[in-house]
Amino acid sequence: MARLVMKFGGTSVADLDRILNVARHVEREVKAGHEVAVVVSAMAGKTNELVAWCRGAAPLHDAREYDAVVASGEQVTAGLLAITLQEMGLQARSWQGWQLPMYTDNTHGSARIIGMNGQEIIERFKSRNREVAVIAGFQGIHKETGRITTLGRGGSDTSAVAVAAAIQADRCDIYTDVDGVYTTDPNVVEKARRLDKIAYEEMLEMASLGAKVMQVRSVELAMQHRVRIFVRSSFVKPEDIDPHAVPPGTLICDEEEIVENHIVTGIAFSKDEAQISIRRVADKPGVAAAIFGPLAEANINVDMIVQNISAEGLTDITFTVPTADYERAKKALDGIKNKVGFTAIEGAADVVKVSIIGVGMRSHAGVAATAFKALSERSINIRAISTSEIKISILIDAAYTELAVRTLHSVYGLDR
Amino acid sequence: MARLVMKFGGTSVADLDRILNVARHVEREVKAGHEVAVVVSAMAGKTNELVAWCRGAAPLHDAREYDAVVASGEQVTAGLLAITLQEMGLQARSWQGWQLPMYTDNTHGSARIIGMNGQEIIERFKSRNREVAVIAGFQGIHKETGRITTLGRGGSDTSAVAVAAAIQADRCDIYTDVDGVYTTDPNVVEKARRLDKIAYEEMLEMASLGAKVMQVRSVELAMQHRVRIFVRSSFVKPEDIDPHAVPPGTLICDEEEIVENHIVTGIAFSKDEAQISIRRVADKPGVAAAIFGPLAEANINVDMIVQNISAEGLTDITFTVPTADYERAKKALDGIKNKVGFTAIEGAADVVKVSIIGVGMRSHAGVAATAFKALSERSINIRAISTSEIKISILIDAAYTELAVRTLHSVYGLDR
Repeated sequence: MARLVMKFGGTSVADLDRILNVARHVEREVKAGHEVAVVVSAMAGKTNELVAWCRGAAPLHDAREYDAVVASGEQVTAGLLAITLQEMGLQARSWQGWQLPMYTDNTHGSARIIGMNGQEIIERFKSRNREVAVIAGFQGIHKETGRITTLGRGGSDTSAVAVAAAIQADRCDIYTDVDGVYTTDPNVVEKARRLDKIAYEEMLEMASLGAKVMQVRSVELAMQHRVRIFVRSSFVKPEDIDPHAVPPGTLICDEEEIVENHIVTGIAFSKDEAQISIRRVADKPGVAAAIFGPLAEANINVDMIVQNISAEGLTDITFTVPTADYERAKKALDGIKNKVGFTAIEGAADVVKVSIIGVGMRSHAGVAATAFKALSERSINIRAISTSEIKISILIDAAYTELAVRTLHSVYGLDR
Repeated sequence: MARLVMKFGGTSVADLDRILNVARHVEREVKAGHEVAVVVSAMAGKTNELVAWCRGAAPLHDAREYDAVVASGEQVTAGLLAITLQEMGLQARSWQGWQLPMYTDNTHGSARIIGMNGQEIIERFKSRNREVAVIAGFQGIHKETGRITTLGRGGSDTSAVAVAAAIQADRCDIYTDVDGVYTTDPNVVEKARRLDKIAYEEMLEMASLGAKVMQVRSVELAMQHRVRIFVRSSFVKPEDIDPHAVPPGTLICDEEEIVENHIVTGIAFSKDEAQISIRRVADKPGVAAAIFGPLAEANINVDMIVQNISAEGLTDITFTVPTADYERAKKALDGIKNKVGFTAIEGAADVVKVSIIGVGMRSHAGVAATAFKALSERSINIRAISTSEIKISILIDAAYTELAVRTLHSVYGLDR
């Protein structure tokens, strides 16, 4: 017997037929003897409809009212799934965010979960013949005001992890449109492999760097509460699952739990990068602050800062910003040109950041050197480099994206 | 300055344009200096969609889950109207049933309101520059379980009256697709007049007898709490309303408040009647119980019971049942034929009950005689009669419905 959270997204509950399919997945786990809490999103398209109505009513609308409107989508799905489970003869009841209650802060529209008490749900597992808790994802309540909050797009993953932490679940199964986390994007590298396991820290890097399987926030929360997440396919039919076998999927867990010893776990890449170089700026205290201060004030996120060794008291500073902020960043820097004193601002929007990720790097030297050598052999020019304990990021021309990702995937032994 | 409740049904909030129109009605009242709580239904069609999903998930579904699903419709409208009011520069916030809280019993799907405390809304009128309370109608919460309840179809009228009672409103305006309560159905009698005022008791009879303007339950609640209801048109544009004139509509109020002295206020009729006569049954104690007991057990509502004076120890008993229960009632009586002993069961489904209603009857003799004489002059045969203090009901052949209603409308001086 295990205690499970099962999370299904909007596509999996898009109509009554698919809700029935979800119910049969739940039935399978309950019949296998498990205690189950299900977290559901709104039916596909519903959230967009509700958001469009709010925008139609007023372009700049009260986020508290927006939350009240938008949270109704998950409310509907939770009720319908509970009805469907009951029709199968299972004990089930729906829970809305305010009923749990799932407490959040009051950042309406993108609230952060503070926590919930899972005691009542656990007691109902025991006292009501494993009653399935069907929980509306994506929503919570602010304790002081009693207003409904929502967690922002993709928030149902975070809801699921928070529920798993609160009820001390053995595992939090995220049913999604892919059957796990891959060593890299299979659309780019045919030989990409599904990982059996990935450490929280690695998944965080993968998620931040463009692997869209999980929301960054949900992985952070899972790492904090040591919730084991299992990413698996929602397209597999319940009857095709062998109850005695480990299903295909990827477990996101503590690195202690990962026995296989990879040095590199995956290659991620992000096209949402633009490079800015400031030429021949005075290498003296306060210059960095003078440059990055105005960007911070403009709420522009700066990444991959590289400063060369100075020559004749002058240096070049290179960094990246999100593509969407590229023009704004250049304008902000133009404004300080005279004050700071530099010869030119150069930039490129057609760049991509490729990252090599793996907790094994901590104990292995030469990982970066291998990448540089492999890229150089393919004549791929490196524009900037930044590293962390478990990640090496390299900025290159966008045209070389696929070549670079395939090369790195192969050189670190990730090909099938 | 007055304190008002304004209630708008599903057609009035069917899309963003109509919600904007509702918001302009609200703005008009707020600008006139009033404190306003608005009660809204779900957007037209939404409740049907949600109900259909519940039925699709399971024909016999948990009413608690049904309520959670269906209540989402009003939640959306309340949020959207609050956003629209804010966009106009008014203070506004939405309230769901559980936020007020609007306490009900736990008869899920058709819960009865227990009451709400209006203090917070009243305080916010004062402290937040007449903040408009935008309240999701049709829904409440059961105190012990914390589950969402709904009041059943048309329940938003009852919500509005309960809110009006809780905040001690001067008036509860029901905006609807007719501009008031008429002396009879204008589709049948061209000369039907809109009433300026009608007493609670009269409205209760009119509503029970088929005038569909107001739900019976909402009128009962209004009578109990002395809430003055004003039925008015939602089709009038806000800019066409003269703020200095009394708008067209009907006030449902205490009879003390009605100065004009009508004997008869209106003529109602109900086609949902079927007549059953039991011929030549023994006139002895226990016979009525033997006949009506099985009908009560079969949950069939019996109305207009008439028993003739007996001849030779035998009598005829006539009564009416709802048309939908006609065949079931006859079958139930067939089963007791031998036990009770009667010669025949006769019946007719093509009958109609016409009712003459007016609190003035209490103090006036001869009202019934006038009706009988007028109908007799038109050769309309009376099949059965039943009376109460403020109502005379007459059962006739359905073919004579229009003629009878027009005749009575005229004879009591109700024509324009």
